[in-house]
Amino acid sequence: MTDRFSFTIGAKDDTARTGTIRMARGDIRTPAFMPVGTAATVKAMLPGSVRASGADIILGNTYHLMLRPGAERIAKLGGLHKFMNWRRPILTDSGGFQVMSLAKLRKMTEEGVTFQSHLDGSSHLLSPERSMEIQALLGADIVMSFDECTPYPAGHDEAKASMELSMRWAKRSRVAFDGNQQQAGQAALFGIAQGGVYPDLRKQSVEALLDIGFDGYAVGGLAVGEGQEVMFSVLNDTVPHLPEDRPRYLMGVGKPDDLIGAVMRGVDMFDCVLPTRSGRTGQAFTRSGPLNLKNARHKDDTDPLDAACVCPACRDYSRAYLHHLLKSGEILGAMLMTWHNLQFYQDLMAGMRSAIEAGGLNDFARSFLAEYRTDPALR
Amino acid sequence: MTDRFSFTIGAKDDTARTGTIRMARGDIRTPAFMPVGTAATVKAMLPGSVRASGADIILGNTYHLMLRPGAERIAKLGGLHKFMNWRRPILTDSGGFQVMSLAKLRKMTEEGVTFQSHLDGSSHLLSPERSMEIQALLGADIVMSFDECTPYPAGHDEAKASMELSMRWAKRSRVAFDGNQQQAGQAALFGIAQGGVYPDLRKQSVEALLDIGFDGYAVGGLAVGEGQEVMFSVLNDTVPHLPEDRPRYLMGVGKPDDLIGAVMRGVDMFDCVLPTRSGRTGQAFTRSGPLNLKNARHKDDTDPLDAACVCPACRDYSRAYLHHLLKSGEILGAMLMTWHNLQFYQDLMAGMRSAIEAGGLNDFARSFLAEYRTDPALR
Repeated sequence: MTDRFSFTIGAKDDTARTGTIRMARGDIRTPAFMPVGTAATVKAMLPGSVRASGADIILGNTYHLMLRPGAERIAKLGGLHKFMNWRRPILTDSGGFQVMSLAKLRKMTEEGVTFQSHLDGSSHLLSPERSMEIQALLGADIVMSFDECTPYPAGHDEAKASMELSMRWAKRSRVAFDGNQQQAGQAALFGIAQGGVYPDLRKQSVEALLDIGFDGYAVGGLAVGEGQEVMFSVLNDTVPHLPEDRPRYLMGVGKPDDLIGAVMRGVDMFDCVLPTRSGRTGQAFTRSGPLNLKNARHKDDTDPLDAACVCPACRDYSRAYLHHLLKSGEILGAMLMTWHNLQFYQDLMAGMRSAIEAGGLNDFARSFLAEYRTDPALR
Repeated sequence: MTDRFSFTIGAKDDTARTGTIRMARGDIRTPAFMPVGTAATVKAMLPGSVRASGADIILGNTYHLMLRPGAERIAKLGGLHKFMNWRRPILTDSGGFQVMSLAKLRKMTEEGVTFQSHLDGSSHLLSPERSMEIQALLGADIVMSFDECTPYPAGHDEAKASMELSMRWAKRSRVAFDGNQQQAGQAALFGIAQGGVYPDLRKQSVEALLDIGFDGYAVGGLAVGEGQEVMFSVLNDTVPHLPEDRPRYLMGVGKPDDLIGAVMRGVDMFDCVLPTRSGRTGQAFTRSGPLNLKNARHKDDTDPLDAACVCPACRDYSRAYLHHLLKSGEILGAMLMTWHNLQFYQDLMAGMRSAIEAGGLNDFARSFLAEYRTDPALR
């Protein structure tokens, strides 16, 4: 099964580790950041540029793709990789999170979720079985089990009922995935731990997932408004229960300092729209913190955005030019800012991997966080 | 003065010719198409991609750049080439055309045009002297004299008065340009013939320009609604009066079949927003005619946009994918469609240059136009 999926740990530094996920379409160096390619495109980027920034894997959204252009259509066109010209691994989410945040007239039952498309009002069903089927049609390399992202805040009872439903759906996801010979032979299936902010529920959730057995384990239901301190606390209560020899994926996270704290707690994989989305609106990530390039102070600034960065935005242009593009609503502004932010995120991951290999992740984190200012008044 | 500007004719085929404009920042192969970089960016394109498509020179808009980010600012930042990272020649228009089509509360006098910015209502003056100054601040390689684009339709009297004003402004442009030692030493100045649709006025205009003397001669006031037949007729009445040994530039033109007809009539240079603007809205130029990629018939089309094209849109994607991007409003759709259209235009120019060199432009034109369908019902 090595061709299908393997995970090898490289170096360890306290709880943090580097590793390699090996799949038929390519290796994924961990800790890994996955750029989000919602609608079969990492917005404002050519796939070659995404790869050039250092990405080994990207994420696609089941909810968006099932509605437009449709999973059956993508399958008929040769699968998501060919459709969007990204030939390396793709992880698809299950649709569970976005159906709750985007769809209209949702109705949730034990069977799954019926909902109306936010695009045209058409009716759809997402269930563990349909989610596995869609992810198979897309041709995902890493498939996520179908879950309910527990709302935040949620009381213990609510979080428990929601987690238990997700665990029944995880089991049905496993059965459906294994029932599709082609999918089971080529893709990997990850389970998702839920349980809100409650340590006992997180532990029960992980135990339920381990009983089922997955190729990797995700921590879901975070980055939904709980704040970094609570998020780290949940990781402290959850990650120790996860098996050492499987990749751990913190879904939908996050800011650069979130990534550092999570890697220090043993997380291997991340995805987040932040670098791409905030790039399009003019926010750049730099070693000294986020920077709003639309701010008038950059109007005459001949400095590069980040002198240490190798991306085209930093290599070929001044802050004044980026400011001009963003103020003028030029597409090139979105292109350059997105590229820079993805480069920054990949450089951060590469920096953490090197630091772990050298046994110096604590120093790396201390030094990074000392320079990184998030106070907007300073920017 | 060879370093500053020279024009050498390569091959001739009836009235058409190939040539090379040699300038300090690089050679321009003619007939040449100049992509439009209105606001210091060819929209949705990196400069390296513009160059890769085959462009030797791009156009910048004086009106837009004087308003945002400002000509003095661009000068302080090192000039337009450095600002936008395009190191080859740039031609800037005079602002005369766009001040009439975009600005508010215009007041035209012998001195020039006072107007309010369409962006923020601020007051500005454009005159021959100020236009030369702005184009010097931008660092343009080819500078256009300041003119009034005669409205269409215009009676003979109106067209004559407007043309005569443009000729007085052309003289003042020449004097101002020559009075700036740095500009006169490095840039080239082109005059612009006006005169509406009236052969006698076009002839008088060219004679006035020849009396002043320019590095190149443009035909202005066309592609303003008169239609291809009238445009070709004006070229028939104007080009024969232009000197053989200077480049001829047809401003703001045009569609692929316009370019072919104009090259056959001896035109050497073109600019037009059509390939970039229509690309962003989903119209692709192909050898069989314009194609609206948003049309539902492309939903499941696995064919490339144009199998004979080497651009990334055609090389790496299906029409179904481009359709999906455009229907989803994805930035990558604008990026790929723009690239393709610019590639199509540059390939068309290269094809015409080869045909002229082989003495077969008539056959090239006949064969191109036989395949090229503009009937929208067929697309």
